[in-house]
Amino acid sequence: MTSDLDNLRVVLVATRNPLNIGAAARAMSNFGVRRLRVVNPYEKAFREARSAVGAAGLLAKAEQYDGVAEAVADCRLVVGTTAVGGRDLQHRLQGLVDGGRQIKRQLRSAPVALLFGSERYGLSNEELSHCHWLMRIPTRDEHGSMNLGQAVAVCLYELVRGRRTTTAPAKIASGKKDKTSATSREVERLTQAMLKVLHDSGYVKPRAVAAEEKLRRLVRRMELNSNDAEVWLGMLRQIAWKLGANEKDNK
Amino acid sequence: MTSDLDNLRVVLVATRNPLNIGAAARAMSNFGVRRLRVVNPYEKAFREARSAVGAAGLLAKAEQYDGVAEAVADCRLVVGTTAVGGRDLQHRLQGLVDGGRQIKRQLRSAPVALLFGSERYGLSNEELSHCHWLMRIPTRDEHGSMNLGQAVAVCLYELVRGRRTTTAPAKIASGKKDKTSATSREVERLTQAMLKVLHDSGYVKPRAVAAEEKLRRLVRRMELNSNDAEVWLGMLRQIAWKLGANEKDNK
Repeated sequence: MTSDLDNLRVVLVATRNPLNIGAAARAMSNFGVRRLRVVNPYEKAFREARSAVGAAGLLAKAEQYDGVAEAVADCRLVVGTTAVGGRDLQHRLQGLVDGGRQIKRQLRSAPVALLFGSERYGLSNEELSHCHWLMRIPTRDEHGSMNLGQAVAVCLYELVRGRRTTTAPAKIASGKKDKTSATSREVERLTQAMLKVLHDSGYVKPRAVAAEEKLRRLVRRMELNSNDAEVWLGMLRQIAWKLGANEKDNK
Repeated sequence: MTSDLDNLRVVLVATRNPLNIGAAARAMSNFGVRRLRVVNPYEKAFREARSAVGAAGLLAKAEQYDGVAEAVADCRLVVGTTAVGGRDLQHRLQGLVDGGRQIKRQLRSAPVALLFGSERYGLSNEELSHCHWLMRIPTRDEHGSMNLGQAVAVCLYELVRGRRTTTAPAKIASGKKDKTSATSREVERLTQAMLKVLHDSGYVKPRAVAAEEKLRRLVRRMELNSNDAEVWLGMLRQIAWKLGANEKDNK
């Protein structure tokens, strides 16, 4: 299946830690993004990441570039990411929600590059200069930068959010099939069974109208589905039977 | 500044890898969430994570528990996370956007626990049975589970997304005082009282673990408020007393 996301290139620039390259690849795989590009990774980091579990195929197909210019050459929109608000930025800064919206629009028709800088320094001014604008992940100012793998995960989540590509929602819906709300008849049957148990146990006096109404409201607040109503009814009948059986033995 | 997020408890259950505990703590710090609870972490993992950089203060204040019940006792909403859609789940499953909305609403007035299971197995059925519902991160079905630190980051991002940091909403909730959801402690007390009655009446066999989990889920689906939980508890105790009294008379 091809999708807009095939137009997205995740570009990791000067990444140092192989765990982070692996984590970025894993997040991409999680969210159905396949095109990973790396610019000047520490050779060792990239080699080690290639053997990382979970997203091996994606890593094997990752493309390596010597500079940002080459890595984003085919893209019509280039967006840099940053977690730092305080830096004196030359670029327009977008929030993740607004920025994500613009990226999604562009992805429908053309390749987009999303750049992530090195763990320690982020994107340099040279690297930033290839970007059309910057996107900021809304972390607390005091804390500073995010973990790289987490930053990739959060950005991709924002791009995927609300999409209807996976088959999951259908399953969720079908799982609700047996969650039909109980009918009033079922709920009332349950109420009466409950009432009987409460009488038999001495919790309410026979013909205590207020108690019955109170119980009826209480049972309705449970907002039971049909299945659960049946389970409750079964339990109550067993309790009622036991109470009755004991009483009989006592006589 | 206190905020709704102070009502959020991130609960890591049976985490094995110290890097993941550290990554979760870092994501929390990034998004301004402070309360970390760990349930049965591998001792070594937790000790090593405590010395992790970036979120040391938060980790030092993390609370350790022996079980999920204790870790969520003060919470009025308990949500489990899952990345797996295919598993045969007993719970209502919410998407991250809808689920996040409900969590945010609850956070205005009461503590909420967000549970993350172990790296390998996720949350067990027993652990899940303490949850009101589950939240699914929208990853591709084929890929399976997410990296723990990334899952925490994505979930917290969703809770933080679009926030304005004012505390105003907290006041709105105070008018709803008598509709306060029951705490997990109250709900668990009710579950145990119910279980006793079901044992005494012969509906379930003693030490039937599956039955206990089933009942726990059933009771949580009632989404009781505190008042109703107390009423139910009173009824159950009366029934239990009567069942016991009858038994004694029979001897």
